[in-house]
Amino acid sequence: MQKKNFVLLNRDDSTLARRGVVSTPRGKIQTPAFMPVGTLGTVKGMLPETLSEIGAQIILGNTYHLLLRPGHELVAKLGGLHRFMNWDKPILTDSGGFQVFSLGALRQIDEQGVAFQSHIDGSKYLLTPESSIAIQEALGSDIIMAFDECIPHPSTRDYVAASTARSGRWAQRCKKARKDDTAQLFGIVQGGMYHDLRTESAEELIAIGFDGYAIGGLSVGEEAELMYEMMEHTLPLLPVDSPRYVMGIGTPENLIEAIVRGADMFDCVMPTRNARNGVLFTSFGKISIKQARYIEDERPIDPDCSCYVCRKYSRAYLRHLYQNNEILSSMLNTHHNLSYYLGLMAEVREAIEKRAFGVFRKDFYRKREVKQ
Amino acid sequence: MQKKNFVLLNRDDSTLARRGVVSTPRGKIQTPAFMPVGTLGTVKGMLPETLSEIGAQIILGNTYHLLLRPGHELVAKLGGLHRFMNWDKPILTDSGGFQVFSLGALRQIDEQGVAFQSHIDGSKYLLTPESSIAIQEALGSDIIMAFDECIPHPSTRDYVAASTARSGRWAQRCKKARKDDTAQLFGIVQGGMYHDLRTESAEELIAIGFDGYAIGGLSVGEEAELMYEMMEHTLPLLPVDSPRYVMGIGTPENLIEAIVRGADMFDCVMPTRNARNGVLFTSFGKISIKQARYIEDERPIDPDCSCYVCRKYSRAYLRHLYQNNEILSSMLNTHHNLSYYLGLMAEVREAIEKRAFGVFRKDFYRKREVKQ
Repeated sequence: MQKKNFVLLNRDDSTLARRGVVSTPRGKIQTPAFMPVGTLGTVKGMLPETLSEIGAQIILGNTYHLLLRPGHELVAKLGGLHRFMNWDKPILTDSGGFQVFSLGALRQIDEQGVAFQSHIDGSKYLLTPESSIAIQEALGSDIIMAFDECIPHPSTRDYVAASTARSGRWAQRCKKARKDDTAQLFGIVQGGMYHDLRTESAEELIAIGFDGYAIGGLSVGEEAELMYEMMEHTLPLLPVDSPRYVMGIGTPENLIEAIVRGADMFDCVMPTRNARNGVLFTSFGKISIKQARYIEDERPIDPDCSCYVCRKYSRAYLRHLYQNNEILSSMLNTHHNLSYYLGLMAEVREAIEKRAFGVFRKDFYRKREVKQ
Repeated sequence: MQKKNFVLLNRDDSTLARRGVVSTPRGKIQTPAFMPVGTLGTVKGMLPETLSEIGAQIILGNTYHLLLRPGHELVAKLGGLHRFMNWDKPILTDSGGFQVFSLGALRQIDEQGVAFQSHIDGSKYLLTPESSIAIQEALGSDIIMAFDECIPHPSTRDYVAASTARSGRWAQRCKKARKDDTAQLFGIVQGGMYHDLRTESAEELIAIGFDGYAIGGLSVGEEAELMYEMMEHTLPLLPVDSPRYVMGIGTPENLIEAIVRGADMFDCVMPTRNARNGVLFTSFGKISIKQARYIEDERPIDPDCSCYVCRKYSRAYLRHLYQNNEILSSMLNTHHNLSYYLGLMAEVREAIEKRAFGVFRKDFYRKREVKQ
């Protein structure tokens, strides 16, 4: 863990927001950073070059999905995930744990790992800390996540305690299993909604030592206030000189609230999945482009947005494309939503550099009160 | 018809192939030219800017589809089809006739026009020569097609004669109905598979006088040889100083055979529709990317192709995308297929400029004999 993979550039004046840089052999990631999700070796509806143009610095690949289709061995044989999908910037891979629990069928968890059946064809798999790391290494990941259990909410304290302890032992095995330390390895703090178990988990991971620390098991059905409370409790426990990644969140508001509490990295399917369902993010909140009110609306999605889609297309056209299930609908909506998320992160970074994130956050909420 | 909308640059030495330029206020079209089809105000899966980059000079919009969704009045209100869809180069619109006959329900044809019900929601429409022209003008078309009946094959001589005569009268009404001669108006030769009726139709249209002449009613189920025979008969009947457009074809071979007989313009859904079904065009023929033989194939679709897709992606990756129904599959496959068609036209133009289209055509067929 001696390599310097993270530099903290500056902190905000009045909040815990941080501005940093994660370094990888494939490039630097300016934080706070949002990572678009490229489930099956493609961020749905986006060319890799376009992702770069709109400011994506790193994308996320799903180990579970890639294991099932096309298989990590095939990806490795074809030169790794970067080459396979034509993306030469960093890739973070998750451990597969989350999808095993949310998608896999007939799963059986024990100390060894998790046995499950594919949700695609029922074929059987065993995912363990060792195999998860091996798969992520075969994919050629730049940031590898430890294999853990994402605990459902609500869960009993006994279950959370036992699961978190096991994820801790798995984290130890993950560190040992790693063959190549070119890639960074991040540990994942669990502990459910129990403050003391979060503390124990964080301390245990720090003792093992990782290149970065994630907070897992949030945005699993709990109220936003509880999620923020768990971040507020957990983020300050993590080493100041390591990147902090809050997994699987979220709305623009969620990101702002995580950043104000000291988080650096995020991923979520929300901008991409919502785009395909016609839900578009703007500086004044979400809009659903299928609504009849947009039939003749010549305005761009967000008059304050300077993305390609907002410069070139009207709400009326985007509604027409959505209503007719045109491929271009998903393409343009995804382009806009990711531009919004990535642009928001760029603005956030600038605000923290100016040590004015508190004001930025107030403005962010004020704009959302104005109906358009 | 006094404006000079077409310049014949040169002819081939040993064939009837022609090299020309169609001029419109929105730009020039170097011929022979292929027009990608943008049915509903989008060439499915393609950004307009990308279409330009790969050499599209003009696209086709479908009057029938745009009439039904979103409606020509809405498009006009929003500034016309070019602005609506962010395409500032020429657009040719068809008359709606073809789709009325292939998609419309409960259609009734008489001297006045065609009454039909929408295949989407059953709502009733009447399309006449006058309304077709008015719709195309409302869309802001650069090249307007006369309203005609696309005669099915086989049809009796009596039916073909009566229909062709009526389409002739409709062509006259179309010319009279045109309000604005900024847009060009093309007549459409019908006559089915009857040489003499084709001759009569061509002579009648020439007497009326159009900016260009199309051959309709081909590729309607007849054998390729018969289609070529009808082109061979009809193309020489058309004025040498006007563009000649063979509608709705076709395979790369069909285009080569039309060009060698003196045709200038083409449109077809084949490259775009086949792309979405995983069928890819190459210099050595078609391939179906879903085949298991491509699972580990690191080669590009066509090693002789220099398009973006062939420079960046393997057959293995494209198969993976197709198998998983990824949006990027349609995007990349369409990009490649249109690059192939548009690239083929560029090569054809160069060959005719060198007065060596005969040799080019032989090479074209020779490459297709080599299995890859």
